[in-house]
Amino acid sequence: MQKLWRNARLATLAGEDWALVEDGAIVTEGELIHWLGPVSALPAGLQPAQEIDLGGALLTPGLVDCHTHLVYGGDRAREAEMRLNGASYEEIARAGGGIRSTVAATRAAPEDALLQSARQRAQALMAGGVTTLEIKSGYGLSLEAEARCLRVARRLGRELALEVRTSFLGAHALAPEFEGCADDYIDAVCAWLPALHAQGLVDAVDAFCETIGFTSAQVARVFETARSLGLPVKLHAEQLSDQGGAQLAASFGALSADHLEHLGSEGIAAMQAAGTVAVLLPAAYYMLRETRQPPIAELRTAGVPMAVASDHNPGTAPGLSLLLAAHMACTFFRLTPREAVGGITHQAARALGLPDRGVLRAGLRADFAAWELNHPNELVYWFGHNPCRLVVQGGRRRD
Amino acid sequence: MQKLWRNARLATLAGEDWALVEDGAIVTEGELIHWLGPVSALPAGLQPAQEIDLGGALLTPGLVDCHTHLVYGGDRAREAEMRLNGASYEEIARAGGGIRSTVAATRAAPEDALLQSARQRAQALMAGGVTTLEIKSGYGLSLEAEARCLRVARRLGRELALEVRTSFLGAHALAPEFEGCADDYIDAVCAWLPALHAQGLVDAVDAFCETIGFTSAQVARVFETARSLGLPVKLHAEQLSDQGGAQLAASFGALSADHLEHLGSEGIAAMQAAGTVAVLLPAAYYMLRETRQPPIAELRTAGVPMAVASDHNPGTAPGLSLLLAAHMACTFFRLTPREAVGGITHQAARALGLPDRGVLRAGLRADFAAWELNHPNELVYWFGHNPCRLVVQGGRRRD
Ligand SMILES: [Zn+2]
Ligand SMILES: [Zn+2]
Repeated sequence: MQKLWRNARLATLAGEDWALVEDGAIVTEGELIHWLGPVSALPAGLQPAQEIDLGGALLTPGLVDCHTHLVYGGDRAREAEMRLNGASYEEIARAGGGIRSTVAATRAAPEDALLQSARQRAQALMAGGVTTLEIKSGYGLSLEAEARCLRVARRLGRELALEVRTSFLGAHALAPEFEGCADDYIDAVCAWLPALHAQGLVDAVDAFCETIGFTSAQVARVFETARSLGLPVKLHAEQLSDQGGAQLAASFGALSADHLEHLGSEGIAAMQAAGTVAVLLPAAYYMLRETRQPPIAELRTAGVPMAVASDHNPGTAPGLSLLLAAHMACTFFRLTPREAVGGITHQAARALGLPDRGVLRAGLRADFAAWELNHPNELVYWFGHNPCRLVVQGGRRRD
Repeated sequence: MQKLWRNARLATLAGEDWALVEDGAIVTEGELIHWLGPVSALPAGLQPAQEIDLGGALLTPGLVDCHTHLVYGGDRAREAEMRLNGASYEEIARAGGGIRSTVAATRAAPEDALLQSARQRAQALMAGGVTTLEIKSGYGLSLEAEARCLRVARRLGRELALEVRTSFLGAHALAPEFEGCADDYIDAVCAWLPALHAQGLVDAVDAFCETIGFTSAQVARVFETARSLGLPVKLHAEQLSDQGGAQLAASFGALSADHLEHLGSEGIAAMQAAGTVAVLLPAAYYMLRETRQPPIAELRTAGVPMAVASDHNPGTAPGLSLLLAAHMACTFFRLTPREAVGGITHQAARALGLPDRGVLRAGLRADFAAWELNHPNELVYWFGHNPCRLVVQGGRRRD
C-alpha cells in the first residue's frame, strides 16, 4: 500500500552535507521508501491510498540508538543523591550502591516488572525520534537472568513501534558467585551463549574490556565463541585506560568499539582497516566529569565512521534523549553538527550492521522523524526540550 | 472556589530536607493553597467544587526560571554550525555572527514575530514544569526595540498560563550607534528607564558587568536610576573575571547576582550580608566549555542562597529545560539534589522577590507540577526527557 507524505523539508543525509530537499515528498510502499524528491518531480500516475500533509516540518531519518543498557531493575537515584550529599565510597557501598545493587534488583525483578520499567524508558527515547534501539543484557549475570533481560528486549521490539537489536553482555561485570574466579565466569558466559542464541535472543555479543572489567584474553574467548556461532561482536573499549581493546575488536571484525576516550593510534588504524565503527558516548563522559576526550580529529582523519549513542544505564548515564547525546558530542567532543546527526542515524545503523536505514533514500526503510525546526543544524543547537512532532516507523505513523 | 487534588506524594520543600508528605492532598482556593497534608488528615466539612485524582504522581512546587533572555529575533544555529565546522572568529564575524546579529534580527522583527518565536520557547519551558518565568530585554538596545521586547514579555504573561517577570537589560551590550561611547550609551539607558517604567514594562533592572560589558561605575549609574524609581536590581557578575560586580550589586541590595564563576570572598560576604541570591547558570558553563566553577562550597558555608536558571539565550545557552539546568548544576557544580531542586523553586522565587511561591504551603500560590517519578531526587537523576505530566498554575490545570 502506497502513502504519500508531502509538504516537508527533507534532510536526507544522503551525502557529505545535509543533502536537503526543499518542498519534498516521500512515497512509501509498505515498510520501505518507494520514492522521494521535490514534490514538483513526483512521478506521474501515483495512486497513493493515503496522503499525509507534514505541515512544512523538517524530516530526518528515524534516529538509531546503537548502545543502551535499557533493561534493569531499580534505579540508582538514591545512590546519586548520597554521592552529591558527600557520602564516601564506603558509605555508598555499605548502603548497597554500585552495579551490584542493579544486578541484585534485576535478578529479583519479575520479567513483567522489567518490561514495564524498560518500556517507559524506551517510550521516552522513542518520543525523541528513535526508531531503532540496541539493548544490551549485562545486569543479570546468570543464564536465567540474562535470558530474562534479553526476552524483555525482544518483547519491547514486538510491542512497540520500534526495532530492537539485542546484544548479549554477559561479560559486563563479574557475577558475585564468581568473585575471584573471573576465568571461570568467562567459561560460564561462553557456555550460556549457544543456549541464548538457540532461543533467538542474541543479535550480537558485547563485553567490557577494562582493568575493572575483563582482560583482552578473556574477551577474546567470548569473541571466539561468538564467531563459532556466526554472531557479530562489539566491545566497550578504552573508556578508562588503553587495554588494546579496539585492536582486539577489530581483529574479530567487530561492528563497533565503544567509548574510546583512551584509544591510541594503533587502535585507530586497526578499526579503520576492519571498518569498525567508533561509538561515542558523551553522556557517560558528562556524568563521570571526564576530561579526556576520544581522539576525534585522528578518527576523522583516518576515516573511521563515528556514531553517537545514549549509553542509557542507571549508573553512569541515566539520560533518555539521543538528541541530547548528540548535542553533548558537539559540545564536549567538537563533532560537527553533520557528524553528530550522522552519528545518531546512518553511522549508528552501521554500528548495528543495518545498512537498510539511517538515510532517506528509495529502497531503504521508511523510518523518519518530523521536527519543529527549520534546519537540521538546529537538532544540535537547541537542547533540553523535545522538538520531535511525529515519528513514522516502517511506513506507519506512530500514535 | 475550592478544589481537592488528591492521591499524590508531595515534595513540599518546606524544610531543609524534601519534606515529603505521603498519600497527600491539596485543597486550593482560587489561586492559593488553602490546605495541604496527608489525605487522612483532611479537614472535615470540605465541600470542594472539584476533585482531581493525581494518580499517585510526585508533586512539587511549580518551577521558577529566574534568568532568561527569551525574546529575540532569529537564532544562531548557523553560527554554531560554522564554529563546529572549524570557521575562525573572523569568518563568523564576516558572516554576521555574534550578539550583533541577534540585535539586528531583533530590531528588524515585528512585535508579533517576536511574540511567536518567544511563545514557542516559553511553551517548551512550561512543558517542563515552569510556572514563573523571568524574561530580560537586552537585544533591542534602543528605546523602541527594548520596549517592544518588554511588551512581548508582558503579552506572554497575559496569553499563557504563566507568570512573567520582566527585567530591563539595556546595559547588556553597547548599541552599535554608540560604538566607542559607552558612557553616552549608559546615559541613554538611564534616560530610557523612566519611560519604560512609566509604561509598566519593568519589574527589575539588570546589567552586564564585565570587561566585554560595562564597568562597575557605569553599572552603578544604571542602578542609581533604578533606585530613584524604586525598582529592584540584579546583575550579570563575575562570569569571565572578577570585576567586583557582586559587591556592587549587594551594595544596592540586589535581588541576585548571576553567573559568578569568578566570585571572590569579598563578594560572597557582601552577598550574604545583603541577602542577595547567587544565581547559577550551568547551561552557559556547559556551552562555553568553562572549567572554572562558581565557589559553591564557600557560598554554602556563608549561607548565601543559591538558585539555578536556564539562562536561555541564542548565543551561549540555547537550552529549553530548567530541569536539565538543575541536572547540570549537580553534575558540574556538585550541588546536592535538594539544593538543585530548591534552586529552581523557592530560591529562584527569592531571586525574583516573590516570597509567595516555590514551596508547597498553605497560603502560598497554588502552582505545582506533577511528575512521573517516585522520589524528588529523580528530578536530577534522569536527564534529557520530560517526566512532567501535569502543571497547575494559580489553582488551574494547564491544558
Ligand atoms: Zn555501555
Ligand atoms: Zn544572562
